[in-house]
Amino acid sequence: MNGLKLNEISVWKKLIQHAEIMERPEKHLKHLLADKDRLAKFSLKAAGIIYDFSRQRLDDKAMDLLFELAEILKLKQQFISMSSGEKVNTTENRAALHTAARNFSDNPVLVDGKDVMPEIRNVRDDVKVFATKVHEGQITGSTGKPFRHVVVIGIGGSYLGTEFVAQALHPFADKNIEIMFLSNVDIHNFGRIVSQIDPETTLWIVISKSYTTAETIANANQAYAFITEKGLDPAKHFASVTSKGSPGDDPGNPVLSSFHMFDFIGGRYSVTSAVGGVPLSLYVGYERFERFLKGAEDMDFHVQNASVETNIPIVAALVSIWNNNFLGYSTQAIIPYASSLSKLAPHIQQLNMESNGKSVTKDGDPLEEHSGCIIFGEPGTNAQHSFFQLAHQGRPFPIDFIGIIRPNYEQYQNQSKGVSNHQELWSNLVAQPAALALGKEDSEPAKSFPGNRPSSTILLNDISPENIGRLLAFYEAKTVFEAFIWGINPFDQFGVELGKTLATDIRKQMAIKNQSPDHSFDDIDPITRFYLDTLFSGGF
Amino acid sequence: MNGLKLNEISVWKKLIQHAEIMERPEKHLKHLLADKDRLAKFSLKAAGIIYDFSRQRLDDKAMDLLFELAEILKLKQQFISMSSGEKVNTTENRAALHTAARNFSDNPVLVDGKDVMPEIRNVRDDVKVFATKVHEGQITGSTGKPFRHVVVIGIGGSYLGTEFVAQALHPFADKNIEIMFLSNVDIHNFGRIVSQIDPETTLWIVISKSYTTAETIANANQAYAFITEKGLDPAKHFASVTSKGSPGDDPGNPVLSSFHMFDFIGGRYSVTSAVGGVPLSLYVGYERFERFLKGAEDMDFHVQNASVETNIPIVAALVSIWNNNFLGYSTQAIIPYASSLSKLAPHIQQLNMESNGKSVTKDGDPLEEHSGCIIFGEPGTNAQHSFFQLAHQGRPFPIDFIGIIRPNYEQYQNQSKGVSNHQELWSNLVAQPAALALGKEDSEPAKSFPGNRPSSTILLNDISPENIGRLLAFYEAKTVFEAFIWGINPFDQFGVELGKTLATDIRKQMAIKNQSPDHSFDDIDPITRFYLDTLFSGGF
Repeated sequence: MNGLKLNEISVWKKLIQHAEIMERPEKHLKHLLADKDRLAKFSLKAAGIIYDFSRQRLDDKAMDLLFELAEILKLKQQFISMSSGEKVNTTENRAALHTAARNFSDNPVLVDGKDVMPEIRNVRDDVKVFATKVHEGQITGSTGKPFRHVVVIGIGGSYLGTEFVAQALHPFADKNIEIMFLSNVDIHNFGRIVSQIDPETTLWIVISKSYTTAETIANANQAYAFITEKGLDPAKHFASVTSKGSPGDDPGNPVLSSFHMFDFIGGRYSVTSAVGGVPLSLYVGYERFERFLKGAEDMDFHVQNASVETNIPIVAALVSIWNNNFLGYSTQAIIPYASSLSKLAPHIQQLNMESNGKSVTKDGDPLEEHSGCIIFGEPGTNAQHSFFQLAHQGRPFPIDFIGIIRPNYEQYQNQSKGVSNHQELWSNLVAQPAALALGKEDSEPAKSFPGNRPSSTILLNDISPENIGRLLAFYEAKTVFEAFIWGINPFDQFGVELGKTLATDIRKQMAIKNQSPDHSFDDIDPITRFYLDTLFSGGF
Repeated sequence: MNGLKLNEISVWKKLIQHAEIMERPEKHLKHLLADKDRLAKFSLKAAGIIYDFSRQRLDDKAMDLLFELAEILKLKQQFISMSSGEKVNTTENRAALHTAARNFSDNPVLVDGKDVMPEIRNVRDDVKVFATKVHEGQITGSTGKPFRHVVVIGIGGSYLGTEFVAQALHPFADKNIEIMFLSNVDIHNFGRIVSQIDPETTLWIVISKSYTTAETIANANQAYAFITEKGLDPAKHFASVTSKGSPGDDPGNPVLSSFHMFDFIGGRYSVTSAVGGVPLSLYVGYERFERFLKGAEDMDFHVQNASVETNIPIVAALVSIWNNNFLGYSTQAIIPYASSLSKLAPHIQQLNMESNGKSVTKDGDPLEEHSGCIIFGEPGTNAQHSFFQLAHQGRPFPIDFIGIIRPNYEQYQNQSKGVSNHQELWSNLVAQPAALALGKEDSEPAKSFPGNRPSSTILLNDISPENIGRLLAFYEAKTVFEAFIWGINPFDQFGVELGKTLATDIRKQMAIKNQSPDHSFDDIDPITRFYLDTLFSGGF
């Protein structure tokens, strides 16, 4: 932002004016789409992705203004600064170097004058050696049996990205290892997992940068007690991914191996670090994890090198801001026409909403524009049979459709109505954006479709490790570009602190009551007291 | 609506005026919550549920006006009419009798003068007999082995509710049967399921009212081909839940058993009919399915009998409308602090958004108020580590928190920081609504919390079949009450038709191309052509 206020930038004002023009009837998508060249003009192909934004509610003028905004705000340069190790996380005085985690060049990346790449390469090597030894049976549980289950203990950024990638790459999981996620502190999560595993062949990976995350430590302790109770040696059933010197990296708490996290990679950007690396390498093999990293690197390379006009994440961020601040959509949906991407929306929900759900600029000034938006989604065609009624006839919201050209499981080719299942899926993927954009008039109001509902469509050739890396890095870059436009810091999350503080006070009250059953909650506010009394009395 | 326009009703206008008053600084929740009697005043307990709306942004005056609105619109009477068989689904000239599916009284329910209860009781009995025979090994697959996997083939309303209940009741699944859902037409969904089952011990249940749903039939055909290819007799591995006389109820397509659906129960309201009954009875036993029905019946009874002021679903619907139309929140989140309720939000997303994402009244007039809202959610505490940054410091959205007093898996009682995992979960459940409501000022803007963010908290004693039935019926009733307020028809879904029509056109083009590889797509609009060419060329 360079101290600029958005609404004082002349092009921002012009965008506001132009958005009013886009509300005119002649700017309805059904008219804009009559231009035969629209797809060629408003779509991009690079880094293994086709990004078609021809069904967004914009025209040449809107794009020109948005590109001008991108230049004024030096978006690409900000990304290059970030990737070069500048301390862009200003409130925490840290760099933001998730791009370094998948950097395979020989160039140094300096933070405070020190090259961080050797450490990153060391961690990658550690992950490779560990996963290989587990797969080859050289590292086993305490009874000598090979590991068959990996349980990831982590929450938020220590879990959602890995879950998304693991789910997507399930067809590649040929290591005879199942992966499970123990995230929620709800004892149900723990109980259900331990009902499905064999403790002797289970490896628990505890992931927490500080190793003090309340939920993660409670679950790790629960697992530790469980393993011990089974007569197994926890030191042979635990690994950790944590900061150097944290309580999880303490020789007093022996583990099979401890992998380091760095303060310059935040949780929600950490899938390509050891956070994703350890579980994913165990699940699909290190070679495929590296292919995933190289896909992400390919997208990063595109971001750093493509012109603003051909830069897919920059264009996607500009479209997102256009929808959010100028056309007034406060929600976005992500609808992959791919069951294996069913955990993409929850991951991006976290990545984007935690990064950009802010109300102050990085300089600490109140932000005058709305930043962040609500992101949700389910796979198509499921979503069509769920909430698309509202998408077509209720409050509009922009959608990212995602299509995969070549499916896994191509051996099942039975046809219905003359088409394969994959073609049936695609007939819907192609039809929905058109129906939303074009609409249809009907003499019966209940059967009328207003249309003019915006969407983009993203295509990948297939669900390969590389393409999942590209898709991940695309959304990461789009998220930080949105933040660069708003002038906010997408790498801190002070908004979660107040809840933690209040929970600590309540936990203390519970701990006292556990020790002294006569303890009364009379000094607490009446609502909190009601909930504590109800919990301790065991029902109502 | 009785032909009334909402914005012509005097109390509606008063609500608009009062909402302006609620924006004043002295009406911030931190001040409202200073009233020691607030919880007693703004919470209800009935039908196994505590509903606490004390952290909603409302006061006595707002509630008085909302109750007046409820009386004017005869909300309770409308529900009673619905439950009595009146054809409230006016656009399709049908009754809406999901309440009859869990009616265990001896009273008749008349549609067109005919009592529908005998048919409903017959279906329940059929389900009971079938499930019992499967459990006792009297009904088996074609090689005589007992069934160990049930795959539900259905999409949208034929699947989401059952998935929610099955997930919630997993600890009760003692029949040695696993349940899976084949919903998406994505071949990945099919491929992954068949990689996890033994065809000899798998029962496929095809659920479709018309038996023409494209995705469901494509998947059923795929499964039929798979079973046949394995040398098994499909007639011994399929059951169907469908309308009397549909292609799925045709003796020419023999199945183990065919269970009837009725045109007076729509898909998204069908969990308590055979749609949920067949798979859930196989999964947890018919007795528990009946307990689930009785919980739903208990809530329906509460709705029909409690006064408007003490009627939990009516109050919840009034609060929802208040938030939506008067305070201007277009999104709502459902955050159960219970991993086993992880599929509640996707089900309610469908139930509510498909029911109420409308823009015309039931009389066919354009609706002048916004109806419907976007519903999303993930379990807590996971959500805290995902999108709650935005909830605390970004755009506010109302939240339904849900807490469970007694967890399953009580055998795991290891403590961290002096509390059990379940208490840790509760310390967060209690802290979050307070933090959202109260906020906190800080000299650093990045660490300030504006507060005044509304939420309700719903408590259940435990996750029993009865309580899941109550929770389901609560959200069903809340949804129809919202529709009754807006004067819309929550039982039709014409908004999904345009996409289906366009998909049919595209499917035909694909089918031609499959037959005649030289077929060109030149006559189609350029964007559709691009997608078809890209799919058929196998990549870009």
